[in-house]
Amino acid sequence: MNAQGQPEPATVLDPQQLERIHAWWRAANYLSVGQIYLMDNPLLREPLLPERVKPRLLGHWGTTPGLNFIYAHLNRAIMERDLDTIYVMGPGHGGPGPVAAAWLEGTYSETYPNISQDAVGMERLFRQFSFPGGIPSHVAPETPGSIHEGGELGYALSHAYGAAFDNPELIVAAVVGDGEAETGPLAASWHSNKFIDPARDGTVLPILHLNGFKIANPTVLDRIDRDELDGLLRGYGHTPHYVEGDDPGQMHQDFARALDGCLDQIAEIKRRAREDGTNERPRWPMIVLRSPKGWTGPAEVDGKKVEGSWRSHQVPFSAAREDDGHREVLEDWLRSYRPEELFDESGAPVEAIRTLHPTGARRMSANPHANGGVLLRALRMPEFRDYAVAVAEPGTGAVESTRVLGEMLRDVMAMNSDTFRVFAPDENNSNRLDAVLEATDRTWNARTVPEDDRLARDGRVMEILSEHTCQGWLEGYLLTGRHGFFSCYEAFVHIVDSMFNQHAKWLDTANRIEWRRPIASLNYLLTSHVWRQDHNGFSHQDPGFIDHVINKKPEVIRVYLPPDANTLLSVADHCLRSRQYVNVIVAGKQPQLQYLDMESAVVHCTKGIGIWDWASSDAGAEPDVVMACAGDVPTMETLAAVDFLRTRFPDLRIRVVNVVDLMRLQDDAENPHGLPDRDFDALFTTGAPVIFAYHGYPWLIHRLTYRRTNHDNFHVRGYKEEGTTTTPFDMCVLNQIDRFSLAIDVIDRVPRLRESSAHVREELKDKLLEHRQYIRVHGEDMPEITDWQWSWAPDRGGRPQSDSVDRSV
Amino acid sequence: MNAQGQPEPATVLDPQQLERIHAWWRAANYLSVGQIYLMDNPLLREPLLPERVKPRLLGHWGTTPGLNFIYAHLNRAIMERDLDTIYVMGPGHGGPGPVAAAWLEGTYSETYPNISQDAVGMERLFRQFSFPGGIPSHVAPETPGSIHEGGELGYALSHAYGAAFDNPELIVAAVVGDGEAETGPLAASWHSNKFIDPARDGTVLPILHLNGFKIANPTVLDRIDRDELDGLLRGYGHTPHYVEGDDPGQMHQDFARALDGCLDQIAEIKRRAREDGTNERPRWPMIVLRSPKGWTGPAEVDGKKVEGSWRSHQVPFSAAREDDGHREVLEDWLRSYRPEELFDESGAPVEAIRTLHPTGARRMSANPHANGGVLLRALRMPEFRDYAVAVAEPGTGAVESTRVLGEMLRDVMAMNSDTFRVFAPDENNSNRLDAVLEATDRTWNARTVPEDDRLARDGRVMEILSEHTCQGWLEGYLLTGRHGFFSCYEAFVHIVDSMFNQHAKWLDTANRIEWRRPIASLNYLLTSHVWRQDHNGFSHQDPGFIDHVINKKPEVIRVYLPPDANTLLSVADHCLRSRQYVNVIVAGKQPQLQYLDMESAVVHCTKGIGIWDWASSDAGAEPDVVMACAGDVPTMETLAAVDFLRTRFPDLRIRVVNVVDLMRLQDDAENPHGLPDRDFDALFTTGAPVIFAYHGYPWLIHRLTYRRTNHDNFHVRGYKEEGTTTTPFDMCVLNQIDRFSLAIDVIDRVPRLRESSAHVREELKDKLLEHRQYIRVHGEDMPEITDWQWSWAPDRGGRPQSDSVDRSV
Repeated sequence: MNAQGQPEPATVLDPQQLERIHAWWRAANYLSVGQIYLMDNPLLREPLLPERVKPRLLGHWGTTPGLNFIYAHLNRAIMERDLDTIYVMGPGHGGPGPVAAAWLEGTYSETYPNISQDAVGMERLFRQFSFPGGIPSHVAPETPGSIHEGGELGYALSHAYGAAFDNPELIVAAVVGDGEAETGPLAASWHSNKFIDPARDGTVLPILHLNGFKIANPTVLDRIDRDELDGLLRGYGHTPHYVEGDDPGQMHQDFARALDGCLDQIAEIKRRAREDGTNERPRWPMIVLRSPKGWTGPAEVDGKKVEGSWRSHQVPFSAAREDDGHREVLEDWLRSYRPEELFDESGAPVEAIRTLHPTGARRMSANPHANGGVLLRALRMPEFRDYAVAVAEPGTGAVESTRVLGEMLRDVMAMNSDTFRVFAPDENNSNRLDAVLEATDRTWNARTVPEDDRLARDGRVMEILSEHTCQGWLEGYLLTGRHGFFSCYEAFVHIVDSMFNQHAKWLDTANRIEWRRPIASLNYLLTSHVWRQDHNGFSHQDPGFIDHVINKKPEVIRVYLPPDANTLLSVADHCLRSRQYVNVIVAGKQPQLQYLDMESAVVHCTKGIGIWDWASSDAGAEPDVVMACAGDVPTMETLAAVDFLRTRFPDLRIRVVNVVDLMRLQDDAENPHGLPDRDFDALFTTGAPVIFAYHGYPWLIHRLTYRRTNHDNFHVRGYKEEGTTTTPFDMCVLNQIDRFSLAIDVIDRVPRLRESSAHVREELKDKLLEHRQYIRVHGEDMPEITDWQWSWAPDRGGRPQSDSVDRSV
Repeated sequence: MNAQGQPEPATVLDPQQLERIHAWWRAANYLSVGQIYLMDNPLLREPLLPERVKPRLLGHWGTTPGLNFIYAHLNRAIMERDLDTIYVMGPGHGGPGPVAAAWLEGTYSETYPNISQDAVGMERLFRQFSFPGGIPSHVAPETPGSIHEGGELGYALSHAYGAAFDNPELIVAAVVGDGEAETGPLAASWHSNKFIDPARDGTVLPILHLNGFKIANPTVLDRIDRDELDGLLRGYGHTPHYVEGDDPGQMHQDFARALDGCLDQIAEIKRRAREDGTNERPRWPMIVLRSPKGWTGPAEVDGKKVEGSWRSHQVPFSAAREDDGHREVLEDWLRSYRPEELFDESGAPVEAIRTLHPTGARRMSANPHANGGVLLRALRMPEFRDYAVAVAEPGTGAVESTRVLGEMLRDVMAMNSDTFRVFAPDENNSNRLDAVLEATDRTWNARTVPEDDRLARDGRVMEILSEHTCQGWLEGYLLTGRHGFFSCYEAFVHIVDSMFNQHAKWLDTANRIEWRRPIASLNYLLTSHVWRQDHNGFSHQDPGFIDHVINKKPEVIRVYLPPDANTLLSVADHCLRSRQYVNVIVAGKQPQLQYLDMESAVVHCTKGIGIWDWASSDAGAEPDVVMACAGDVPTMETLAAVDFLRTRFPDLRIRVVNVVDLMRLQDDAENPHGLPDRDFDALFTTGAPVIFAYHGYPWLIHRLTYRRTNHDNFHVRGYKEEGTTTTPFDMCVLNQIDRFSLAIDVIDRVPRLRESSAHVREELKDKLLEHRQYIRVHGEDMPEITDWQWSWAPDRGGRPQSDSVDRSV
């Protein structure tokens, strides 16, 4: 029975359709096996000699025939219904499949003219697969039509939903492997359907592919009872259609029927949402395809079951070069697809196959959504200077910098209401970005109650308590040519370390693929950061994402530490306009001192690093000490230390250097954002002690600067895993990055202070002790700490603010 | 109706029971609110003046009354049935709850005598919460009875299952918050019930707590339809019991009935498994508790709904110090629990409350399973030397080192059949640990088919394709006093970066808590590593877990890079015997050269770093160059380079230093495993060039050694994000860590070679070119590369092997 309760037709495909779709599948399977095994002799027109078999057999056969089967059927539906469809293959190890399909569709030869659609091209197609100088074994960036590598598993659905948002006519067919389905990110992402608006967004059609085995184990979803599986999928909010078996003829009919049923349901859902204006959350259809692992492969090898077993996972047998028996199995297997019927004399696909796929941009391998850069439009941007915080004197005021950023994001949102979204794991308001909710609502298409705050089906603030899902959505959204912004608690962004890795690697690889057009950068705002997790304590303190990020190629990553609101605005504007980067911005959400007026902020951020003359006392001469800082709290503590030191030692020559763009610390040979040694030496001197207060783990500064002339004199303070639930200032004290400890560091390292100023050192030690005692009684920081503001403003002996960054490089 | 189809009794609790259980709950709630808000005046015997309210209000009220409610009911069941129960609170932000319960049970005062069970102790209990010098706001290691911090969300169920394995009589009550339920790790971990053996293992009783809201958003599971939720939970393999409402009297009855029903079902399941020997997988019972967020808190504040809304998430109102109206709300709220009925004149809980909790080790706050170190027994260990690989000459042979380790693990498994398990995300065999399956099977309690390989309900090899679940299981298993071993693909261990963080922080904190006894170390084997992911390509290449790990406290982390099988055995033996560390072992699974016989391996591993005399040509004098290496592939490439250099430059004095224990590179002031400068200088000299071939990202070596005398002469090669699907040797070439590139590095850095040996340099460049051309034709490495073995064995001019590490420090 179909969804409307009418009896299903016994067959959906007429005999000719069936034969042709089966032929297409055979062709794709043939080409897949050929890629895994053959060096040449692609059409088997000569005997299969040992040396024709690849010496290293790499690739994953097991999932591939299923991927090809689905591809063939999607093509029929695309042609019949003129669908705009992309294909996300969760089991991305099945790389040979989409490569085969792209070649059959002609896209591969259009993209890589050397791999022509003939026997010569087929030989090259085979040879290049998993071969030195060739293409990777997974659905990599090199594969036309892909936005999803699948090398690491778990992100198929979140990527698919990311692609579907704001693409009203797009259907994203997303195959979920039953291995992948065991991962956390995948398990969480099923609930993405509560965040899709059937009127405004496209559709994700999940296809759960139960082929039963992983590398060596069965899969959980294949081995639970049918009522459990059905309950689970309905619990996820879907109406499952089951296609199960191993007889190709019957399976073709069943899958065609299921797919037609799903597409009819989808069309009806969208009609109801758009024409009837219904508000109900639909139970979206999905397909469960249960087919043998390694389907159509050898049933047995060496007396052991292969098709339908875990032995099909990678290469079903590996001695085809050395073992005549294995080679015979291989040849029989290849010939079982009857290549002579599939390819003409020239080696091109025969007419019946060439007319079974859509043309132009309707081909899934050529759909522009899968090369998002070609669709990318620049964001309409408000003038970020309009949100400037007035800074009467540097080092004064109390502004929540991220709240100011929220106002700019609100207007970015309003001006780009179909190409920009913000993402957060239930932290948008906590991170002070509330203003965004003036321009839109939170996306929500499940039940609501009166207490709810700004939920709407067509909201554009994406919040689910899953960093994985947020990240996956955003990646899918960016890869299909849109823009986004992800705010996250700093410590918990480590949850997506591995997803970041994969995205950064994708960008790096895509940079070397000419036809992949640049996409919008992935922008992280890390807030609720280590220095203000005093209330949540030790478990919420980890500034190490920066360390993780900078292991990736310098060409694709950027790290910014704006110390106040105006620098944050300037940095955010830059990041939102950028392409093909991962930008990490670290900024606090608590009220904090402001330092730079907007024009100074722009100059400072453009340079990325610079001397703050207004805070320095070196008068342009060689300083006694350089006080460097990166990050908002370290900047404040550094300035408070400088304030103290200038009062006590009026003739001490202090130079204050602030770092916004962390990569400036590396040299320009290592990093395109790096500073040449000459400029670095001009800032940090070649011999003065440098007291560097850094936001994160202190050794990272050493890692970035170990080649610099003055590195031996760098003394870095940062977070060294000391923390608990205590006051904000005490967090600094515990890690010796507080103003008093920094001042002590200066006294200890400037020779002329070291011996003469023991009494000041003692006084600072007493201040630390006094603070400790105070907080244990009062539970909060002393007013002299919390109320501190910079005292060396212009009229009190500082320099005019307009000079502030003149000596920046 | 109950599970047997009989009508349920209208009430389970008689009036007195009801009153007492309600009184206990009121007491726990009172103590929870007191902790969040009050500095002193704990019993409200004096007026509530502003200064009695804490200046910084920190803590999470929203989830706490639910946690307390469940605690009260579990206590009744424990007493009635004499249960052995621990309580895992997923919403660990509700820290005040279990602290209150532990105080009521007397455990808190036993553990912390200063927090006595009287008015003085209560005042201290309140004051210390989230207060400088006090305790964190979450269920931290400081909390008696906890194995689960819950500061980061998502691990409640996997921790609970880890605790239940091999604890046949233990019931682990695990509260899953509906926010947490949205995370990937939690969503994946529901399927853990397919890995539990009702006969041998304990029981996890999940309690899904739907209180409807997160920080600012509703929760997905609260807002889907009942049929969906029910399907989902049954799909996870559970039989849900629903308790829903807000009337305490009715809710007490309903919860008591549900809990009794679950415990009866659990008893029956276990009886059937143990007595009837049934093999079916049970549908385990669970409870869904739907109750208002911030239940029993103020209904409204400032005209806005608080109880039953997201406004209850943290502190329901924050101006209780400054605002008289808020303070009045606070006082009314506290008095609504009628503290005068709950605590006697001295401030101790009244008799009715003191008799409502179990005694001794039956108290959940005092259950020894939650302080696993007290139950820990040392592993029975085989003699690791028995698995030694014979090494006739160093640098020869071809052994899969991890396969040898598998044989030792097999025997560890056999000798510790109730306290040791191995964990892997479907990679046990891929990682060559197959031998373990000779001693046990894979754990599996779902459907099986004939093709399955070694699955059994009571297997001890834990494989699910979720790094998160594996890690969570292992953590729970270790924290309850057992031992384990986790093997994982190196690149994908980043999936658990954040979980590692939390565990390392737990260990670090526990080190400072005297009553927490040391637990077994968490042992990782990272294999399928970056240098042999040539077949899976770029997405599978990331050696950065080491970088991530060493950001944590040196006291709790260790990193080992054994270069061959015997060193791997020695390291693994050491790690398995160790306590309170996270040990990271990186070792390849491919056939590789062997270097050290067992006795040399033991000496070398004990020292952690040492000169390999047999490979060196410095004859104990000052070398021209130090060739350092860490990791199996870098070691091989280094030795091949040395082999070449010694042939070409017979009088070049080369010193080969191999590093097994990476932390030896740091100085002993920074790291307890660090080498004193004197010893470091003796190894690395104070002026010779050092060519260091390192397994991972090269800058990590700089980070570890930047303070060393000779650091400026360190030239480090490692993985620099260059990779694709290519040959193993080409992976080295791409990253310039191959033998030819290393030899070029030597020529470039040894002054007397630099000018005189341009021809050798050209020859090496030609070799690189020749290799590149060869692989593009043949698809595999040249035989001279793959067949290379060390040629300077004793009889060919090397030194006797027994000297091999004499000069190690």
